[in-house]
Amino acid sequence: MATKVFDFIKEDLAVLEPALLEATKAKVELVTEIGSHLVKSGGKRLRPALFFLAARSGGDYQRERVMPLAVALEMIHMASLVHDDVIDNADTRRGSATANSKWGNQISILSGDYLFAKAFYMVASGEFSKRVNVQLASLICDLSAGEIIQNKETYTACIDEEEYYDRIAKKTANFIAISCQLGADVAKLPEKTVDALYDFGYCIGMAFQLTDDLLDLTSDSKKLGKPAGNDILQGIVTLPAIHALNVSPDKEELRRIATNRNMTAEELAHAIDIVRNSGGIEYTKKKVQEFLNTARKVLPEDLPAEVRETYLMVVDFIGGREF
Amino acid sequence: MATKVFDFIKEDLAVLEPALLEATKAKVELVTEIGSHLVKSGGKRLRPALFFLAARSGGDYQRERVMPLAVALEMIHMASLVHDDVIDNADTRRGSATANSKWGNQISILSGDYLFAKAFYMVASGEFSKRVNVQLASLICDLSAGEIIQNKETYTACIDEEEYYDRIAKKTANFIAISCQLGADVAKLPEKTVDALYDFGYCIGMAFQLTDDLLDLTSDSKKLGKPAGNDILQGIVTLPAIHALNVSPDKEELRRIATNRNMTAEELAHAIDIVRNSGGIEYTKKKVQEFLNTARKVLPEDLPAEVRETYLMVVDFIGGREF
Repeated sequence: MATKVFDFIKEDLAVLEPALLEATKAKVELVTEIGSHLVKSGGKRLRPALFFLAARSGGDYQRERVMPLAVALEMIHMASLVHDDVIDNADTRRGSATANSKWGNQISILSGDYLFAKAFYMVASGEFSKRVNVQLASLICDLSAGEIIQNKETYTACIDEEEYYDRIAKKTANFIAISCQLGADVAKLPEKTVDALYDFGYCIGMAFQLTDDLLDLTSDSKKLGKPAGNDILQGIVTLPAIHALNVSPDKEELRRIATNRNMTAEELAHAIDIVRNSGGIEYTKKKVQEFLNTARKVLPEDLPAEVRETYLMVVDFIGGREF
Repeated sequence: MATKVFDFIKEDLAVLEPALLEATKAKVELVTEIGSHLVKSGGKRLRPALFFLAARSGGDYQRERVMPLAVALEMIHMASLVHDDVIDNADTRRGSATANSKWGNQISILSGDYLFAKAFYMVASGEFSKRVNVQLASLICDLSAGEIIQNKETYTACIDEEEYYDRIAKKTANFIAISCQLGADVAKLPEKTVDALYDFGYCIGMAFQLTDDLLDLTSDSKKLGKPAGNDILQGIVTLPAIHALNVSPDKEELRRIATNRNMTAEELAHAIDIVRNSGGIEYTKKKVQEFLNTARKVLPEDLPAEVRETYLMVVDFIGGREF
């Protein structure tokens, strides 16, 4: 993420990196090595950043006290990516080799488990309320359930928009919402503000995932770090394709390709064309803007000015995101 | 496990089964289906049983209050077995189809994640101390680290006995120890008794895993539900083989086979013979007895008579275990 967006919390983010490295250290050398590779492969650190912003909105911000939770959020994200990469058989992520391509599936599955458990350990040993522990556990239940639905539906070309929203809510929006909410929680903000920040996070999370799904179809492999149309190739239909499956005159051809586990590169290119010609891209862009507008509307007024400004910059950033 | 051993807590165990089914239910139907398959595939329920026994040793036993922790212990066990079966590419466990053989690796990885997270959820939402949450998280860190070490060492025929003990401690003994300890914890037993029950659990856990490793070499596939010599086939050397690798006149031949990823059935049979002829079986049986004797010695005197008796029956059971 463009660094200037998070200028206000740049010190928090600077302290986060060594804290992440420290947290992924283990007595077993190989675990430390994998953790360190994952941390150094980078990432937007979007979840901790959104958490820090909310956490700074209360009266008494203590970075050391909240840091274990920021670390846990990023570790849970890392763990779920590690398992996703095993499941998708992915070789690279953000231009770096995936854990499964470096250490194999077996060790990657176990490393993901380790990271999940260590994230809970960080939070359970910290000074957090019962609610925080419950929220995190519930979050991972949702994350896995969302991925299970997605996995079950591959190559079925399911055209139900509501199911799609439910899936990306579980997979992404809920996580981003909880990152904001937990920050508000540790800052002891009024319950109304906590809820509003959850809603804000949910809306930007939905917009974020919709944009991800758009970029998969519109961007090129250089920017994306993976080939365009990868979702369709993996049997996953996202909103632009769902729109095309509903309205395109070539919807039957698209369905035929999207349900074929052995589609050729030519067929994939044809499928992408059908989606683009159906207006699915514009339809999805409109939904992104709707979520971002709602996000702007629900963002609480009573936050410190710098926090509000930064949250609004995040909204703009997601709207203009190209990678 | 022979039912009569756990006669004293048979009602706790009877209530556990529907509680497990309930806990593995999810909004996503497929998750419920997998959870229900896993619960119905059975198992010894050793960890919850050992937990109940300790939990009943305090003044004020409330089954409903402690049940979520018993459920969590079994769910963590189930989750780790689900991931193990993916890693080992196992088709059956205890005579039932594994999750990976029924639903594939991808859904099984995610279901394991779901079960881990749900276990934390059960405990975080229950009335348990911070220490309980920390212990459980730390337990899963150890479990995964133990499996990572084991996985890393496959087909290396590592002959270090201490490393072997460390690995089975992380994989099994520590979990069984914590099951006893957490029971003592919720029963608010004196710190000395809590520690002693941890040590007791550790010793029977070590004996239990050593026996498992023995049975892999001495039992037949009908009793075991998997082919004899499966560990060697998977590249894992356990204490009997380690002993043979240290003392057998045929140790070089054994090393050659145990480090060969493509060993034939004939070579495997030969390897088993070398281990049997080396005295590795007797050596391991002696170690089992040593751990069981220590278990008897460290078992606190100040437990209720039925609890002590049952724990001692467990010790005898492990000593006489044939499957």
